[in-house]
Amino acid sequence: MIVITNSNITDERIDEIVEQIERTGVQAHVSRGTDRTVIGIIGKAEPTLAEHLRQLKGVENVIKISKSYKLASRDFHPDDTVIEVKGVKMGGEHLVIMGGPCAVESPEQIDEIARLVKAAGGQVLRGGAFKPRTGPYSFQGIGVEGLVMMAEAGKKHGLLTITEVMTPEYVDVCAEYADILQVGTRNMQNFDLLRKLGTIKTPVLLKRGFSATYDEFLNAAEYILAGGNPNVMLCERGIRTFETYTRNTLDLAAIPVLQQLSHLPVISDPSHGTGRRELVEPMAKASVAAGANGLIIEMHTDPDNSMTGDGVQSLFPDQFANLLKELEQLGALVGKRFDTPKEHAEQFATWVK
Amino acid sequence: MIVITNSNITDERIDEIVEQIERTGVQAHVSRGTDRTVIGIIGKAEPTLAEHLRQLKGVENVIKISKSYKLASRDFHPDDTVIEVKGVKMGGEHLVIMGGPCAVESPEQIDEIARLVKAAGGQVLRGGAFKPRTGPYSFQGIGVEGLVMMAEAGKKHGLLTITEVMTPEYVDVCAEYADILQVGTRNMQNFDLLRKLGTIKTPVLLKRGFSATYDEFLNAAEYILAGGNPNVMLCERGIRTFETYTRNTLDLAAIPVLQQLSHLPVISDPSHGTGRRELVEPMAKASVAAGANGLIIEMHTDPDNSMTGDGVQSLFPDQFANLLKELEQLGALVGKRFDTPKEHAEQFATWVK
Amino acid sequence: MIVITNSNITDERIDEIVEQIERTGVQAHVSRGTDRTVIGIIGKAEPTLAEHLRQLKGVENVIKISKSYKLASRDFHPDDTVIEVKGVKMGGEHLVIMGGPCAVESPEQIDEIARLVKAAGGQVLRGGAFKPRTGPYSFQGIGVEGLVMMAEAGKKHGLLTITEVMTPEYVDVCAEYADILQVGTRNMQNFDLLRKLGTIKTPVLLKRGFSATYDEFLNAAEYILAGGNPNVMLCERGIRTFETYTRNTLDLAAIPVLQQLSHLPVISDPSHGTGRRELVEPMAKASVAAGANGLIIEMHTDPDNSMTGDGVQSLFPDQFANLLKELEQLGALVGKRFDTPKEHAEQFATWVK
Amino acid sequence: MIVITNSNITDERIDEIVEQIERTGVQAHVSRGTDRTVIGIIGKAEPTLAEHLRQLKGVENVIKISKSYKLASRDFHPDDTVIEVKGVKMGGEHLVIMGGPCAVESPEQIDEIARLVKAAGGQVLRGGAFKPRTGPYSFQGIGVEGLVMMAEAGKKHGLLTITEVMTPEYVDVCAEYADILQVGTRNMQNFDLLRKLGTIKTPVLLKRGFSATYDEFLNAAEYILAGGNPNVMLCERGIRTFETYTRNTLDLAAIPVLQQLSHLPVISDPSHGTGRRELVEPMAKASVAAGANGLIIEMHTDPDNSMTGDGVQSLFPDQFANLLKELEQLGALVGKRFDTPKEHAEQFATWVK
Repeated sequence: MIVITNSNITDERIDEIVEQIERTGVQAHVSRGTDRTVIGIIGKAEPTLAEHLRQLKGVENVIKISKSYKLASRDFHPDDTVIEVKGVKMGGEHLVIMGGPCAVESPEQIDEIARLVKAAGGQVLRGGAFKPRTGPYSFQGIGVEGLVMMAEAGKKHGLLTITEVMTPEYVDVCAEYADILQVGTRNMQNFDLLRKLGTIKTPVLLKRGFSATYDEFLNAAEYILAGGNPNVMLCERGIRTFETYTRNTLDLAAIPVLQQLSHLPVISDPSHGTGRRELVEPMAKASVAAGANGLIIEMHTDPDNSMTGDGVQSLFPDQFANLLKELEQLGALVGKRFDTPKEHAEQFATWVK
Repeated sequence: MIVITNSNITDERIDEIVEQIERTGVQAHVSRGTDRTVIGIIGKAEPTLAEHLRQLKGVENVIKISKSYKLASRDFHPDDTVIEVKGVKMGGEHLVIMGGPCAVESPEQIDEIARLVKAAGGQVLRGGAFKPRTGPYSFQGIGVEGLVMMAEAGKKHGLLTITEVMTPEYVDVCAEYADILQVGTRNMQNFDLLRKLGTIKTPVLLKRGFSATYDEFLNAAEYILAGGNPNVMLCERGIRTFETYTRNTLDLAAIPVLQQLSHLPVISDPSHGTGRRELVEPMAKASVAAGANGLIIEMHTDPDNSMTGDGVQSLFPDQFANLLKELEQLGALVGKRFDTPKEHAEQFATWVK
Repeated sequence: MIVITNSNITDERIDEIVEQIERTGVQAHVSRGTDRTVIGIIGKAEPTLAEHLRQLKGVENVIKISKSYKLASRDFHPDDTVIEVKGVKMGGEHLVIMGGPCAVESPEQIDEIARLVKAAGGQVLRGGAFKPRTGPYSFQGIGVEGLVMMAEAGKKHGLLTITEVMTPEYVDVCAEYADILQVGTRNMQNFDLLRKLGTIKTPVLLKRGFSATYDEFLNAAEYILAGGNPNVMLCERGIRTFETYTRNTLDLAAIPVLQQLSHLPVISDPSHGTGRRELVEPMAKASVAAGANGLIIEMHTDPDNSMTGDGVQSLFPDQFANLLKELEQLGALVGKRFDTPKEHAEQFATWVK
Repeated sequence: MIVITNSNITDERIDEIVEQIERTGVQAHVSRGTDRTVIGIIGKAEPTLAEHLRQLKGVENVIKISKSYKLASRDFHPDDTVIEVKGVKMGGEHLVIMGGPCAVESPEQIDEIARLVKAAGGQVLRGGAFKPRTGPYSFQGIGVEGLVMMAEAGKKHGLLTITEVMTPEYVDVCAEYADILQVGTRNMQNFDLLRKLGTIKTPVLLKRGFSATYDEFLNAAEYILAGGNPNVMLCERGIRTFETYTRNTLDLAAIPVLQQLSHLPVISDPSHGTGRRELVEPMAKASVAAGANGLIIEMHTDPDNSMTGDGVQSLFPDQFANLLKELEQLGALVGKRFDTPKEHAEQFATWVK
């Protein structure tokens, strides 16, 4: 940590600041410049020291050199985290595909979509039972019933399932039915939810807040990791910018950046990241080329009549199937292994009794 | 609502879309242009119709002309909402001042600050017992104990109290001790929390999400109003932009905009809106000049040693007192009445037994 | 300047970096931390040293402690700059009002508007002869002819004039006719234009680029100052954010921030800053309360038929006149002197022969 | 075009608006809704009509359905534009690679880099002779001398050359020495420069303003096209967002979006788009996977000592060569032809006498 003082600070005040610093058990090295004085702090500072120093009189700025997250950092855990659920591996060289509708609507709908996801080579079925909606009068999801329908469809077709959980009190029931829990972009800093997810072992797909920096994103992951759940995946899903033609701006540089800063798998969401069906295919390919560990893609058999209105960004089943074939080839060029349906079948065979 | 079709749509497809629209009980008026065709929808459409139409083949865009929120809209409720708690009025011509520390730290701290807030002419004591923090290793607040300390200080000095609530399960206990509940910027779209707050009558200060549009902000308020709680105040507290010199960019145009779109009181937070003590005073004055119904300002007796590190944006007590005198004069120029401490004393005298 | 090294840097590499630094004639102080090593640089470094060091292997970050601009900095010039043109003072305690149409349209139009600006108490007549437009098919201004019309109207009614200059080759002709030259938001980093403006003495109103940081803004001013023209005014005119309800987000904190960092006058433009007539009044008041040294406001006698389409943000003459009365009172509360028309008349009397 | 009226508009006022519209020679269709009235405009409206209507009393909003640019639009020109210079094709299925240093520094430097670009399979040599710099004290490029050095290196090694032009008066000299002219991000709306570039036939690489929308970007291209120069390429080079870890946020969705809206080639700049060497490779691959028609990449033989300080984002020659091999394979998967050095040699042989 480095403390930069005001240009007109007195020697006396510098001494007082040094004393405050050293009282906490670390060392302070003072470098007097022609203009400003800089105090370097050596040793393991308490997490709150920077916050404390920043508010002292005479201090212009405090710069943290070490990161504020630890368990999420690659410095701490150099190897890629690979999460395995029922034989499906996520992270490292494995390219995982999560597909399905925005919302679970009926047993028939989710069953048919599950069949198509599996046939195309996907490994995970996505679907929302609880939907976060901007306004109170929009369709809010069908609730626990939807979880049951999706669990059955996943089991029948040999797919893992992922669903969004919005509030701490629903974590347990969601974890009972789904293999992976998703935290939505609006809840990335719902700290009570993150803390609750730290108490279980179910893998969590943490979506980046639509205005969260990489640092805030990794700190949010740190909440879950620090609670004791090591199974966290990061999901880039587009950020909010001045451009409104696309629903969000998919920040693909986040993929290599997060993989450098952290060991956690990084998944890309080209559906929410663009909000337009015709952009999902190029952005899915770009995500894989950038090194993504997986993709989460909306697909619907009847997007014209989806209940959430997100049909506009859902692929048709044939588009989804064709895309997966292309992604397999692209993945091979960047060192990503696309586990095939046959392998899945065997994995699931060993798992389902 | 207006539906704009693709330029190459067939007449047949237009007829199909019109049929779908009219099946929902509204009328469709088709205007064929040289380039695109436009379908106007007349009558009271279902809330989900726009979402449905947007995903139809042949539809390029759907433009909502009516707003998606109703109870929060001034169209629906032309007069200013004035919320009264224990004789203190908030909204309309009343200028309310909420002051206090970022976090409650001890009984002595909050008592002394309450005394100073009251002496300066403030009406509400602010203080956090539960603190939302970016990283899990930062100070998280002292919890329920802090609520008790603040309630006592408020009662003793004749101040209302406001505190942040972060999760639905804590709403009841916070409402037991505090007069106003605050929803923080990161929780503006924590819909379960908003729904829970709709079930009580305690006034809510809803902070704008740091990347929320006005429309999303008013829709978030609508969740609380639609639940049955009419006592909502909106708080502009700065948005996230490319500028990093200030902690946030305080969007003061939000004040007149929200007052035009809505009847709810609009409060400004120059402390979080700037993150720098020296900017609080000019931005507080600017907020009042722009028509704010009140201000929420951090003040601390010993900002160098605040536990949250937010001391850097806290005013010293004398700065706070001087500012309030100036705000009173400014308020008078823009038609805002600054209720004085003497009036408060009388209000509270009638209320406390 | 501070150099922060990578965590895995070798001692040998540190020595090489130190050697490179010291070869430029400054001193390097090495502080080895438990994690990273920090090298403090003491002495007057060459402007390009930071850029050079940032690209060295082993260097993680370089933090400049001194500012990259000098002539624009208050450190260098502690007193407020007050620019005087024909007796009108701009900067310091003087509150200057610039009013007029978006574009000069005809001699009658600009004459009538000049009369109204003067009658209301304004000191400067604004009007565009060359208009920067997003698309090539929009009205581009009437050119030099407009400059002549505006100069005549200004002279007749005793007003200074300000107009936008878009390209270096038009600087001389614009300076011949106008008292103040304006650089538009899209040209804030048109460095050839800035350099040319540095070669004259005509005051320049430099508008902030709609996505420029304070630092970039002050560096743009530095181009003009470094060229030899000390008469620069800074103009906050709104920045681009995710919010699209307003045309821009008027960043009023820029006013006190720029006044702290720099000695140059800071003018606010609530017309472009909001793009909506009904927001001009509250934002003009807020600007003065925040400490602005002046305002530039669009006013039109027939906004419904303005040629640029900016009528939507132009005040009607009576609104303009009423606003100025209110600003005078507000200015008095924050220590700003509103020079009255009578004073102007005398100033101009002494000046116009 | 659609005009949406205020909710409280009178029938009389609607009639007046309709009359104003029809006086311009187009038809107005009125649809009265329960809440607002909508006026659809049919026929070819004058470009300024929307601007005019927006400022009328009683008008809430005007929505343009047709685009404001025409020559840049794919509606107007359905086939991909392919620009051919000295046998090198840019656009359509051709993948063009532009490589070289940020700035031309010496004849030896540019000659050696040209050799390496050619050997790796690049077709265009990039290099700046005039450099736009945030502050006036930074290195500003070596000027015309640099143009001469680069032209010689290009000729010797069989490469096209591209360089940035910053001001209208330098367009002719830059066009004399370089094969392609680049407009930098800060000059995207330097309309005098764009107009001047419309008067020549030299191809122009127009960089997106770092805060420009797609619509503004295509309107800027329209200035050049409308002037008579059909040879425009669009370059996505990163936009400004709240994230500061990367220098900019490379908006890769811009590639398919611009290719859908326009027929012009779209080039990606992963060097400026990220500002970090280690991100150039993944973002270059992602750009090709997203369908880019080419890339412009900084490469330097001695990035530690580049004169502009941009070495931090420059690839080393071996990284550049390896990347091009990988891009060739990726390109093949997405239907992009990577013209090889051998082909170039033959092209140039036919061209250089």
